[in-house]
This record gives sequence, structure tokens and C-alpha cells, in this order.
Amino acid sequence: MDAFRFQNPTALYYGKGQIEAHLAEEVLKYGKRVLVVYGGGSIKRNGLYDKVMNILHGAGVTTFELSGVEPNPRLTTVHKGVDICRTEHVDLILAVGGGSVLDCSKAIAMGVKYDGDVWEIYARKGQATGALPLGTILTLAATGSEMNAGGVITNWETKEKLGGGSPYTFPKFSFCDPENTYTVPRDQTVYGACDMLAHCFEHYFHKTEHTELQQHLIEGVIKTIVHNTKAALDSPNDYHARETLMYCSTMALNGMINMGLRGDWACHAMEHEVSAIYDIPHGGGLAIIFPHWMEYVKSENPSRFASLATEAFGVNPEGKSTDELADIAIAKVREYYKEIGAPQRLADYDIGDENLETMAAQAVRFGEIGQFKKLGKDDVYNILKAAL
Amino acid sequence: MDAFRFQNPTALYYGKGQIEAHLAEEVLKYGKRVLVVYGGGSIKRNGLYDKVMNILHGAGVTTFELSGVEPNPRLTTVHKGVDICRTEHVDLILAVGGGSVLDCSKAIAMGVKYDGDVWEIYARKGQATGALPLGTILTLAATGSEMNAGGVITNWETKEKLGGGSPYTFPKFSFCDPENTYTVPRDQTVYGACDMLAHCFEHYFHKTEHTELQQHLIEGVIKTIVHNTKAALDSPNDYHARETLMYCSTMALNGMINMGLRGDWACHAMEHEVSAIYDIPHGGGLAIIFPHWMEYVKSENPSRFASLATEAFGVNPEGKSTDELADIAIAKVREYYKEIGAPQRLADYDIGDENLETMAAQAVRFGEIGQFKKLGKDDVYNILKAAL
Repeated sequence: MDAFRFQNPTALYYGKGQIEAHLAEEVLKYGKRVLVVYGGGSIKRNGLYDKVMNILHGAGVTTFELSGVEPNPRLTTVHKGVDICRTEHVDLILAVGGGSVLDCSKAIAMGVKYDGDVWEIYARKGQATGALPLGTILTLAATGSEMNAGGVITNWETKEKLGGGSPYTFPKFSFCDPENTYTVPRDQTVYGACDMLAHCFEHYFHKTEHTELQQHLIEGVIKTIVHNTKAALDSPNDYHARETLMYCSTMALNGMINMGLRGDWACHAMEHEVSAIYDIPHGGGLAIIFPHWMEYVKSENPSRFASLATEAFGVNPEGKSTDELADIAIAKVREYYKEIGAPQRLADYDIGDENLETMAAQAVRFGEIGQFKKLGKDDVYNILKAAL
Repeated sequence: MDAFRFQNPTALYYGKGQIEAHLAEEVLKYGKRVLVVYGGGSIKRNGLYDKVMNILHGAGVTTFELSGVEPNPRLTTVHKGVDICRTEHVDLILAVGGGSVLDCSKAIAMGVKYDGDVWEIYARKGQATGALPLGTILTLAATGSEMNAGGVITNWETKEKLGGGSPYTFPKFSFCDPENTYTVPRDQTVYGACDMLAHCFEHYFHKTEHTELQQHLIEGVIKTIVHNTKAALDSPNDYHARETLMYCSTMALNGMINMGLRGDWACHAMEHEVSAIYDIPHGGGLAIIFPHWMEYVKSENPSRFASLATEAFGVNPEGKSTDELADIAIAKVREYYKEIGAPQRLADYDIGDENLETMAAQAVRFGEIGQFKKLGKDDVYNILKAAL
């Protein structure tokens, strides 16, 4: 293990009925002027918008709204939110949606307190100096944004998609009611599962030694995701499958299963370059890239892949070599993606080789990426080419 | 899963060098008048006392001291600490020691802000109204007190040992340097391992349904404890074994592996009655009681025990019935205790049947105990009798 500091102060409310029971009391801790941020309007169709607004107005809260947050949330939308918060003297931002809405809200929260364009924080040219309090109501099991301080923003002017955050942007509270994910479309459920699984993989592949407990915790999350995705797809209103996936998504990226290790994160960096140009779903991009990355790096430490096979996918190791088990692990990952209907190749999104050079160059513009294996521009090019 | 609220705001510093690098900055967030609480003086022998005092005094901090905290910390000691804090206008309590020192410090922290005797909070006759800020420097991997809000205090006047806590008593920060556990005596290392394993068992056995991820997380902690105890006993200065055990102890009781389920906790309740009379080490008492409790309750849900065998102890299930696997699980638990030299029977502490009735009656004085199986007075009597 590396020496580490860990702190995650978010108050997490899980399960049905929690919004009705506790939302008003949590909001009123921070004030009575609230900016409600949401996406394309699904929360209006499924009744969540009305429920939340009734609770807020019933508690004497004045609400402002920022709607239409994009799946890959854009800097221009963040700027709109910052303007509203400043003009209306907002006390609290309440994000109602999936990871994109939450990430956008974190950027707004930092932007309000930042003297300059908040993009500087994402472009590593500035540091957050504070943030408005943020609360969230989650509607999609995927990014873990409900219990961490990070987020990803896309700048369409510069064609950059970058992650950023600060100790200030942990949500003060997050409400995770699995029933709010019943109406998530099938493809979004798939992308969400791909995203949370990708977070586990990013933690699982590293070079930090003596991380036995972390390894087992991550394996636990991986096998639970794999075991529950199909049930949620087959029966969208299966409370327990939805609840389990939602809980996996939170645990996969709240810092609790990966303390003291430096995860890989190369696949996320590569995916960001693909969606910065093609605006594809993040989870879909990750599902495409991961198996190819795995093939490319497995010789670095085949026994790590063998553990993935035996501990997370339950493969009986008897009579199999480490290399064979490593290959089986990758096959299992591919099989899972296929079974749930995740995309397999960049071609599935009509992406050809026209921007490979640009994407490879951009992915490494802050230096080599990855921890399990350090990747330079050529490596990224090769992996993305294999994924065409 | 049950609906739940989870929040754990403690800032955790793990690894060697963290005290030197960050203790002063953390302490100074809360003030310059600090009560340092510690136990029997082992921190003076191993140099930790001098290190901490040098850092505090170098930062301009005025220190007060409460030493001699007992292994089962006593209410009278808590009262002394409360008096010092009030008289000296202490800003922060810094607990340097194992779970007993930390638990005592939590009681002091609540006591300072409580209008009445702090024992009322433990006796369920009052609720905490606040607490002085508390920081900890851990010297024993065992109780998890470094990252939770609870603690156990013994009232020798009434012969009661009761747990209590409040949202105010999460440590603000905790420093966990595995090197500070090198000099822990062998028996204390054993008791610590028994205690953290017991916490896992308390979480593992319950009646809450649909807790697949929690199950796997708990199994991960159990197998890591079992795998590392012997290394720490064989080579007390094995940094990685010490580090892994310390990390297991924190994760076993910081709330992260058991969200949304109601653990059993009957064995803890029974053990408290034994040590309230006989003042035996908590971990030793738990190691004695658990196998007998397991035998007594296994018919409630043998498949839970079978999972313990296959998932945590790596037993190959082929050709074995659920009942056989359940028996193997209990045998594995006994084998582990035996291998590390934990006590096996109450007789090992010269405890006979003289107080069985009293202990059984006291254990259920707030009502039946346990979740996996509800236990009344007769059940407790039977289990303790079997453990003689």
C-alpha cells in the first residue's frame, strides 16, 4: 500500500422512501434558494420532478432551474449555471439525474467560487478555491459521482473532455432510490453497468504492492455487477437488482475499495478522447476499449488477470496455466459485454481511423498514461486501432 | 437491503511518515490546548510519546495528559478526563493508543458537552448533545474505533459494560502507522485479530435479504485477516502484514462493508457481560464465545455458514452438502483461533459457572439480543455454559 489520506464526508441516503422522509431537512441545512439542475426531461415524465419540487416548495424553498444538461456535459452549460447561481444568490445546488447532471453541477459549484473561468481547473491551470454546497438525487447507476468529488466536463470549443474536482465538491448529501432507475432505458442501464465495471478494472490493475484486501473488495464489486446486470435488464422494475447495481456503482468509485493504491485509468483517458470528438456514451466507449487494452497489457502481469478469472469470475483454476487463466479472464469480460448488449467495436458508432492520430496525441498530452503499464502515444494508437 | 443513511467524515491518514508530515496541521485546525490520552505507558517505551509531544510542542500546542486508561476503560477514568477538559478549556482530545484509549476519549469528548453524567448516554437514559473534537493515533489493530463513532465503557460500580456513541464522536482525524504496532505484545495482536474478525462475523450473520455485495466485501475482509495474522505473529516487524491487519481492522468496523443490513451483535453483548464481571480481554472473550454461538444458531440458516466456508475459507464445495459445509466453516473458525493461540474456553480465564445466571440475565436486560437468531436469557445461558 502507498501511504494515503482518505476522507469522504458525503451523507448517503439509500432506498425507497428516503427522499420523502429526509430531503427537506437536508436541503434546509444549507438555505432556501436552490438551483435544481437536470437533464433532458426524463424526470418530468417519470414524476420525480414533481415529487422533488413539491417537497422543496412545501418546505418554503425558492427554486431556480437549469435543464437540458447533455450526456457529456458541456462547459457552456456550466457557465449558464454559474450565472444563475451568482445572479440569484443560490444557497444550494440540487442535481437530479445521472452522472452527467451531477458532474455538471460540481463544475457549477466550483465555478461560482472561482475567480476566472472554471475550465482552468479542468485544464490544470488553476485550483478550486471553494464550492457552493451540492446535493444530489441519483437517477442512474453508473458513475459513482453521487459519492465522490470528481467530474468530467467537455469543452466543445477546444474538443477537450477532462476530469477534475476538489475536496470541496463532495456532495453534502445524495439520495439513491433504486425506484428512480426503473425507467432508465435499456441502453443506459447497459452503459451504466459498463461504467461501474470499468471503475473496478481501473482500480484492479496497478503496480502497487501488498493490496490484498483492496483486491478482494474490488473482486466483490465486480462479481456483484456481473451477477446483477442481466436481472436489471430483463426486469427493469426488479427492485433488488436495481438496488444492487446502484450500490455497486456508488462503491465502485467512492474511494472505499481502492485506498492506498494508484489505479490505472488509461482506458478512461483514451475513452475521453474518443467521446471528445464523437460524443459517444462514456460507458459504451469503455466497453469497447477495455478488452483491447487488456490484450495489449496482459503480459505485464498475467497473474493479475488470472486472479480476475478465478476470484471475480469464479473460474476453476485446476489444470490451467496462468497465461491460460489470463486469456479466460479477458474472454469472460468480452462475454459479459456481449451478453448485456454493449458495443464491441468503434465501428458500432461509425468511428473509423480518421482521427486516430489526433486522439492518440491528445490522450498523452499531459504525459504517459496508465499505471499497470505506462502508455505513450504509439501504445494508445495501437489500442484504438485494434478497437476499430 | 434496508434503507439506510451512511456518513463517515473521519479523515484517515495511513502509512509510515504520516504523523510527522500531517499531525501538526490537523491538530492546529482545532486549537492549541490539547488533552493527550493514553494507556499504560507502552507509548513511552517505544518512543511514540516523545515523537508526538515534540510535534505538538513544536507547533506551539499546550498539552495536558490523562494516562493509565485501562484495557476495559472505566467510567471513573472518563470522569477524570472530563474534569481536565473543563478546567483547562481543552480544544481537542488526542487519543494515542488502542481501542480502549480511543473509546475512553470518545466518552470524555461527549461528557464535556453533556449536562449530567456521561454514563447516562451509555445506559440509554440520555443522548449526546455534542462532543469536543477528537483526533487519534492508533497503536493496535483491533477495534476500528479510529474510524467510527462508537465505544465501550465499563462502570465498575454497577458492573456494567456498555457501548455507546453519537454522530459527534467520529474522530476528526486518525493516524494509522503500522510501525506503531510493531511492539504490540503477541497476545494483544491475537486479541486484536479476534476482535476484527468478530466484527466481520457480526456483520455476516443477519436476516436482511439482498445483501450480495456486502456479503462479498465482508468475505474479503475475513479472508485477508485469516491470511495475515500468522505473518504478523511470526514476524512482528513485518510492515506489510501489520499494515494489512491494521487496514482490515479499520474496514471491519467503519460502516463501509455493512451498509443497509442489521448485523447480529449477540456475541458482543454476551462478551460484554463476561468482561464486565471478569475483566478479561475483549478479543479473547469473543474468540471463546463465537464458535459456541455458531453451533447454537447454525440451523437457522446453514447455507450462510456454507458460504463462509466456500467464499471466505476457500473450501471446495464439490461433493459436500450444505450442512457439511456449515460444519466445516465452524471447524475452520476454531482452527484459526487455535492456530494463532487464542483462548478456547472460559476456563482458560478461570471462569466457572458461578455467574452464568447473572450474565445471562444482564445480557438481555434491554430485550432479546441477536438478529440472525433472537436470543433470550436461556439461550445466552446455554451458549455460555457450552463455552465453559
